[in-house]
Amino acid sequence: MVTDPVPQTVAWRAGRVRLIDQRALPGRLAYVECATVAAVRRAIVDLTVRGAPAIGATGAYGVALAARVAGARRTGGGPGAVRAAAARLRDARPTAVNLAHGVDHVLAAYEREVAAGADAAAAARAALEAAEAYADADVRANRALGAHGAALVSPGARVLTHCNAGGLACVGYGTAVGVIRAAHEQGRVASVWVDETRPVLQGARLTAWELGRCGIPHTVVVDGAAAGLMARGLVDLVVVGADRVAANGDVANKIGTYGLAVAARYHGIPFVVAAPVATLDRATPDGNAIVVEERDPREVTHLAGRRLTPLGSAAANPAFDVTPAALITAIVTERGVVERPDRRRLARQVSAPAPAGNGAA
Amino acid sequence: MVTDPVPQTVAWRAGRVRLIDQRALPGRLAYVECATVAAVRRAIVDLTVRGAPAIGATGAYGVALAARVAGARRTGGGPGAVRAAAARLRDARPTAVNLAHGVDHVLAAYEREVAAGADAAAAARAALEAAEAYADADVRANRALGAHGAALVSPGARVLTHCNAGGLACVGYGTAVGVIRAAHEQGRVASVWVDETRPVLQGARLTAWELGRCGIPHTVVVDGAAAGLMARGLVDLVVVGADRVAANGDVANKIGTYGLAVAARYHGIPFVVAAPVATLDRATPDGNAIVVEERDPREVTHLAGRRLTPLGSAAANPAFDVTPAALITAIVTERGVVERPDRRRLARQVSAPAPAGNGAA
Repeated sequence: MVTDPVPQTVAWRAGRVRLIDQRALPGRLAYVECATVAAVRRAIVDLTVRGAPAIGATGAYGVALAARVAGARRTGGGPGAVRAAAARLRDARPTAVNLAHGVDHVLAAYEREVAAGADAAAAARAALEAAEAYADADVRANRALGAHGAALVSPGARVLTHCNAGGLACVGYGTAVGVIRAAHEQGRVASVWVDETRPVLQGARLTAWELGRCGIPHTVVVDGAAAGLMARGLVDLVVVGADRVAANGDVANKIGTYGLAVAARYHGIPFVVAAPVATLDRATPDGNAIVVEERDPREVTHLAGRRLTPLGSAAANPAFDVTPAALITAIVTERGVVERPDRRRLARQVSAPAPAGNGAA
Repeated sequence: MVTDPVPQTVAWRAGRVRLIDQRALPGRLAYVECATVAAVRRAIVDLTVRGAPAIGATGAYGVALAARVAGARRTGGGPGAVRAAAARLRDARPTAVNLAHGVDHVLAAYEREVAAGADAAAAARAALEAAEAYADADVRANRALGAHGAALVSPGARVLTHCNAGGLACVGYGTAVGVIRAAHEQGRVASVWVDETRPVLQGARLTAWELGRCGIPHTVVVDGAAAGLMARGLVDLVVVGADRVAANGDVANKIGTYGLAVAARYHGIPFVVAAPVATLDRATPDGNAIVVEERDPREVTHLAGRRLTPLGSAAANPAFDVTPAALITAIVTERGVVERPDRRRLARQVSAPAPAGNGAA
């Protein structure tokens, strides 16, 4: 892999799947090495690894691990065990479409070898090669996306971002953070405002950590401060990631994104969404078709085991909100920039020829 | 005082200033008793007591305490010491105009006695009477304000509020929470969305606690969720307090208020500010003249002693933002409702005859 100040989130190391333990950040950079499919699945479930592209690659390596374990066994195992492992990995988290993508991509490569009469070792090698290609493609796609997005960043820009659409959410480099990194490499970024992003604080914990490792000047603020910063003329551009982009350009992303988009529009500040083509979901016609996931209220009522709210007070915890396409200045993918996104312009982008070697992303 | 499910925030008890320790809520209802002006000032600075009217009353009692201490001393002290104490109290926090009001109100009563030749004990008694009158007037003003504001709440309303403009921010009853309480007593409130209000979590900790004590249904959400709730049609009215209202109707209030006002306007939802007349500052022409307090970044970077952000990541912590009058549907005071507030309409309100016995607020 390309040397990077942010270590690769998901990687293959000596027959194991190595993950950055994102629960320990920013206090500690720790790794979890998974030697079994059960351990990989647990890491996805317990948020050791999070971010749709990152768990997609984790699922991909998980299938490669299953193929290796099945091939190494003297008795039992074989293709049936690999298929069962793939099924267990695929449903580790229900909402991330990338997880099924990653699992199915590697399983298909494995099945092709098996169908061609390859032995278990050769099939396992093919699975690992497919997983490595899938992970490499993620980083390459993000770098291409970053290069396209950087052109939208004016020199001296003060950029605001929300949540973590960074290398930690992917295999490496990042989407929204990738745009910031690419623009920073070109000397265009004066500084970055990092929304802390309650309730899980991915901005304060993860985005700040990544920007620090990349040497990019940044300042963490509470989510409520963003609109006031805009009013004071301190924000030139907002760039965020996306969990899902509907066919008409409506964007589901971390709770708080929509309010930022409304405030950016009010202040005439460009609002840019960075999303790999894999995030564009043609099967979802518009934002109304996106179900907003309600997560455990304990993420709101408790922090680090400490109760913040009174006993008896209810809390709601919608994990995402939907930003209508009309509030979005541009959606950036690895294939280019879609300005004033709508159904037609997005469809054109999705059907554009993919950059070489990028098919797996 | 009137019996109330929320105990009085600031009171005089046996020669000391007794404050609810708001840092301990909602886990524990504890009191801090201040026997010295230094202790009173520290309680204002370290947020044992917060909320513009509450710190106004605390400043008022602080001067009464200074007068008592000066009168009790055999040597030194006297009017010079009281004036010096008043000056130290007045600048304990910069944004809320009420602090200076409370301090100056009691100091003036004290000075009148001194000028009239009263002895130290009589001057101290006069100072204490002035402080008690100031505190009583706060509760009376809030009840009047609540009654006026309740008329703006449609039956069945789902009300959203930010921070804590409740009894804990005042001597009792509350301003924005007072409007909600009065409307709830009239059966008009279906439920309340409580913004948690990072960084100090006054909504999650204090407003939720007060609403719970008053039996008002409520749900705590992260600040970033508010705009999404509006988009989903789940908010009928926003009501917030104010730390300072400029002569033209611009409002300084807890960070995050401005973003709410922008989102409310975007969704056509009424945005109401509840502010006693004491909060209207005719000496401040508009929002540009309001000094926004930058508080310790540790409020953002740490929670309960635990570091949230990476070492080396900067944080900014503007405590307030300014909402322009143009985004405000109405400002409610104890004297009535000022719709579409501007310089002329507000001036008329301030010069309206005060309700009986309310002169000190």
